[in-house]
Amino acid sequence: MADNTVALNITRIAETSAEIVEDEVAREAALTIFLNDTELVTMLCSPAEENYLAAGFLAAEGLIETAEDITSLIVDETRGIARVATKSAGETDRIWKRFISSGCGRGATFYSAADVTSPPVESSIRIDPFQIYRLMRAFQDKSEVFKSTGGVHAAALASEAAIELFSEDIGRHNAVDKVFGRCLIEGIDTRDKLLLVTGRISSEILLKVARRGIPALISKSAPTDSGVKLAEKLGITLIGFVRGHRMNVYAHAERVALDEQR
Amino acid sequence: MADNTVALNITRIAETSAEIVEDEVAREAALTIFLNDTELVTMLCSPAEENYLAAGFLAAEGLIETAEDITSLIVDETRGIARVATKSAGETDRIWKRFISSGCGRGATFYSAADVTSPPVESSIRIDPFQIYRLMRAFQDKSEVFKSTGGVHAAALASEAAIELFSEDIGRHNAVDKVFGRCLIEGIDTRDKLLLVTGRISSEILLKVARRGIPALISKSAPTDSGVKLAEKLGITLIGFVRGHRMNVYAHAERVALDEQR
Repeated sequence: MADNTVALNITRIAETSAEIVEDEVAREAALTIFLNDTELVTMLCSPAEENYLAAGFLAAEGLIETAEDITSLIVDETRGIARVATKSAGETDRIWKRFISSGCGRGATFYSAADVTSPPVESSIRIDPFQIYRLMRAFQDKSEVFKSTGGVHAAALASEAAIELFSEDIGRHNAVDKVFGRCLIEGIDTRDKLLLVTGRISSEILLKVARRGIPALISKSAPTDSGVKLAEKLGITLIGFVRGHRMNVYAHAERVALDEQR
Repeated sequence: MADNTVALNITRIAETSAEIVEDEVAREAALTIFLNDTELVTMLCSPAEENYLAAGFLAAEGLIETAEDITSLIVDETRGIARVATKSAGETDRIWKRFISSGCGRGATFYSAADVTSPPVESSIRIDPFQIYRLMRAFQDKSEVFKSTGGVHAAALASEAAIELFSEDIGRHNAVDKVFGRCLIEGIDTRDKLLLVTGRISSEILLKVARRGIPALISKSAPTDSGVKLAEKLGITLIGFVRGHRMNVYAHAERVALDEQR
């Protein structure tokens, strides 16, 4: 279990008072599966049980049927690689094409914080904690489908004063893509705006936010360790666990206007 | 909003008493994006704002930069297709290869309940509601990483008496794949077992469960409409919103032992 979490120093805020505390966040790692020496897929995951994940993924995609189909399964945890050899090695090309045509879906665009090339977000906005508490309450009140079904994620673009755009989707990434797609199509400026999301914050979302020049990402859920590292690197204020008049700031707390800074 | 939800009759259970009530679940649809006449990706989403989703996805994947890159964007909502033409149409092959090699990720394996070929699960197990309430409590107590970080999903294979396997992951699908991968590698029989998950239930997970011959899928979260339809078709008892001594049964309630049936 310890391998799956990382202890970090974060800024815990109640009302407008801050204290630095140690908190645990979930680790996020990339696992690339090679099937018979062909690179099949890279996925973000928790770094544990990679052998089970590789076998389960191949079975779920219909690429293997039973354990006997696997002739070897070697995991290199340090490099994040699982190499699987199967009895049907000669058929990999055919399998690969079928996999791509039928199964290729929502992938993360990059897999290591080191690969990220987006320039850091520059913004001099200062955010009042009570504006965040108010925005989060308005955000949750807007979530009609969630309230009636409990089954969707939401994302919103907000100024410090109010929510400007709002989308819901059964997919965590889709809700964010809908908001940013609308900004793109309608020519809405996203700089100095805030992005609110309902879901867990993993590294892919940080890159999307950085590309739109958004200086603050706010969630009612938790970030992963890679999410925190990327926020730090990309100059994004990362706020999680906004509940009532409390929240955690995981990166770039200097944009949050706190008591001692007023 | 109405388009994003569907009203269904479900079996609402408190303790061991059942009533049929109308409930709303989130709709789930497939959207296939064609980029310059080449099929790029099929994703599961809520059926609304498909134009924003398509543009946002292309931008997130770095396939377009600005709205000016798009020369046309046509959505066929009925067929679930978005056709996007861009200025760089001649480069689609190169873009497509780059997309596949860098971005191909966790895809759903099928996109329509009509495509599903898995035979229905046959099982004569009868489940006592209090066994489900106890299992769900044990499941949540086991979730160490969730308790310390709030940022992961979990899945467990259980008999009616106890939890047998348990995995956590930052990815909803990964947690299920880890459990099933372990079953595969270690030769653990999954028939007549139950699968417990923390996350929302969309259609992909039903197919995974059916392939392992598991007769009941139990979540503390909500299903989508496609999840419910598939559960019905695949002979899987689908239980959601297990909270304390209450739960909703969305499909095949006949396996749940209720007062009037005892």
